[in-house]
Amino acid sequence: MKIKAKACGEFAPVYPVIVPVVTVPLAERSYPIFIGDGLLSSLGRRCAALKLGSRCAVITDRNVAPLYAKKAMASLVAAGFNPSLITGPAGETSKSVTMVESCYDQLAKHRLERSSFIVALGGGVVGDLAGFVAATYLRGVAFVQVPTTLLSQVDSSVGGKVGVNLKAGKNLVGAFYQPRLVLCDLGTLKTLPKREFRAGLAEVIKYGIIYDAALFARLEKDLPKLLAGHQASLASVVARCCEIKAEVVCQDETETGLRAILNFGHTIGHAIENTCGYGKYLHGEAISIGQVAAAKLSAEVVGLSDKEVDRITQLFVRAGLPIQIKLSATQRQKLMAAMLLDKKVSAGMVKFVLAKKIGLVEPGHKINPKLIEDVLRVESPIRASIVNRKS
Amino acid sequence: MKIKAKACGEFAPVYPVIVPVVTVPLAERSYPIFIGDGLLSSLGRRCAALKLGSRCAVITDRNVAPLYAKKAMASLVAAGFNPSLITGPAGETSKSVTMVESCYDQLAKHRLERSSFIVALGGGVVGDLAGFVAATYLRGVAFVQVPTTLLSQVDSSVGGKVGVNLKAGKNLVGAFYQPRLVLCDLGTLKTLPKREFRAGLAEVIKYGIIYDAALFARLEKDLPKLLAGHQASLASVVARCCEIKAEVVCQDETETGLRAILNFGHTIGHAIENTCGYGKYLHGEAISIGQVAAAKLSAEVVGLSDKEVDRITQLFVRAGLPIQIKLSATQRQKLMAAMLLDKKVSAGMVKFVLAKKIGLVEPGHKINPKLIEDVLRVESPIRASIVNRKS
Repeated sequence: MKIKAKACGEFAPVYPVIVPVVTVPLAERSYPIFIGDGLLSSLGRRCAALKLGSRCAVITDRNVAPLYAKKAMASLVAAGFNPSLITGPAGETSKSVTMVESCYDQLAKHRLERSSFIVALGGGVVGDLAGFVAATYLRGVAFVQVPTTLLSQVDSSVGGKVGVNLKAGKNLVGAFYQPRLVLCDLGTLKTLPKREFRAGLAEVIKYGIIYDAALFARLEKDLPKLLAGHQASLASVVARCCEIKAEVVCQDETETGLRAILNFGHTIGHAIENTCGYGKYLHGEAISIGQVAAAKLSAEVVGLSDKEVDRITQLFVRAGLPIQIKLSATQRQKLMAAMLLDKKVSAGMVKFVLAKKIGLVEPGHKINPKLIEDVLRVESPIRASIVNRKS
Repeated sequence: MKIKAKACGEFAPVYPVIVPVVTVPLAERSYPIFIGDGLLSSLGRRCAALKLGSRCAVITDRNVAPLYAKKAMASLVAAGFNPSLITGPAGETSKSVTMVESCYDQLAKHRLERSSFIVALGGGVVGDLAGFVAATYLRGVAFVQVPTTLLSQVDSSVGGKVGVNLKAGKNLVGAFYQPRLVLCDLGTLKTLPKREFRAGLAEVIKYGIIYDAALFARLEKDLPKLLAGHQASLASVVARCCEIKAEVVCQDETETGLRAILNFGHTIGHAIENTCGYGKYLHGEAISIGQVAAAKLSAEVVGLSDKEVDRITQLFVRAGLPIQIKLSATQRQKLMAAMLLDKKVSAGMVKFVLAKKIGLVEPGHKINPKLIEDVLRVESPIRASIVNRKS
């Protein structure tokens, strides 16, 4: 199924006149993704269209709250809602069962009902946490995503994977739970720290590698514009990423097959995040290293050309992302052990998504742990020709 | 849809020759409920038929573990599984987010995978807790119910409602998540404390009131046999209750309508459990009081006859269950406040399931809180004719 963004006419003068809308087609659970500058002020109005109860809660973090909570709350109030605000600490460490319980307690205090809804206002951490809370509070209340980072706009806010981390590993607890609406306000990217923006590009580049060689080529060409925050380029790239994610998700909502391709670079990436302690590497940085490693594995196992390994590596480098990680022997052992706890492990074997060429990947490759260790060495004997950049 | 228990031929000499099987028909999520004496030893064999991975975990509590954990583990090992045992404290207080997190950590330690499964061995508390853990660990692993109490055999193990309590209220967190198999070993009822057995009868009687006047009449007749542990009577009553639950659930899996009738007596019951602290009243005792109160409300609001209010009250009394609760003014206030936190509250109004006659109920009745307070008074001015028994 090909999914194409449509233009949605807007009449209120504070919004852009044309807003691209991507629909995630999941029958009765279908939902729209609106993409544009300044959309946050339309939050209340768009929630009103969902015909939910008046009580709701906005879950956000201490970085995002000072910037956007007031605007989000005002928009909800103006539309007749009775919102309460739940603000947690920022960062991956707050994607915890403890934080989930704290949210539950606050929702109970505010007497949210089954007809109520939860708005996730923030990056991927907030979206995953708030989504899991929404999936499980009262056995599920409605849920709206307002992603404020590039990474969450192109990836985590779409597709319904929600959850939190355990000490033992990332995203080990969660649910498949679709939002009712996603609002990507590109204006929020203007306040995003550069490092976070670059981390988001790691997921953008991923879509090129796994699904769309033309997108990859466009990124090679337009990267400077994106890094400069050019709104039209951003809107078009974010919409294309959402289209790809929607196409993949609607074919395999609960990851029994195709959806696994979205995990390109993620098995190693998650293990890096886990081994180094959540928060040291941003998710985008960890999967940047993971994708370069996966590209090297792909060259070894499924014949990805050296030229394309180089193109992939170069694009991550140009985006200002790390492509390698220096590990002691002990750290490397820990990382390998963490990989075995990945949800995608089956019968003790780690399965990898590998690229045959840019734009075409295959999931389900069982890889010898020795080979994984080899490609992770900074002085890797494998594909030593690639740029050797300190991470 | 009428659901009838079928007979299932068994050849292994340790099992009874005929085992009633009720199927819960939910398309690709359909599952069987086996009912009979001594079924626990067939656990491994029946799990093997589900074609799951070899790693699994048995979640149980400190009351049940000494009685049945060894047998359950041995049956799983004999069928080629690699089970680990997770034993928590017994009682409603362990249906907590803290206990959920402890289970997650232990599952991670035992490296459960997506193909793994969780066996809930115990009463309703264990089933609800283990079911919620199964619904959310790795975004969902398969789950088998082995209910060892009458209450869980006829109610909580069937239908997929799983979850835990918050300080603010019972079952405020959870999911709809169906088991793959339910194994009701009637032999486990022999070790059940009498008080627990009677509490289970509260749910059995409920099925008569909400759905089946003939079952109610049979209970009036056969109650002494059931209280004496007569196996054939038990098997037939448990199977009938499971049939009713299956019929209701398959028409309304996620409680958008009909399923609400299963909550007869539960709104007040949950508030009693919550106000008195979980564990003081058993769930069956609390809903016994709740059902008698709901019968009185039914008489006031939808014309349930005085005679049937009396029949209902008498049956609970004969089953050795409490029908009233003595509350101070403060306690009554607390109870009313707790009711407003019930999941079934909509726009601040508590909705009740009321009985027009035995065997026929209607959900969705909004009741004036004053009337609820009145029927809860021990010296209730309403239907004062009913048996006035100290609870």
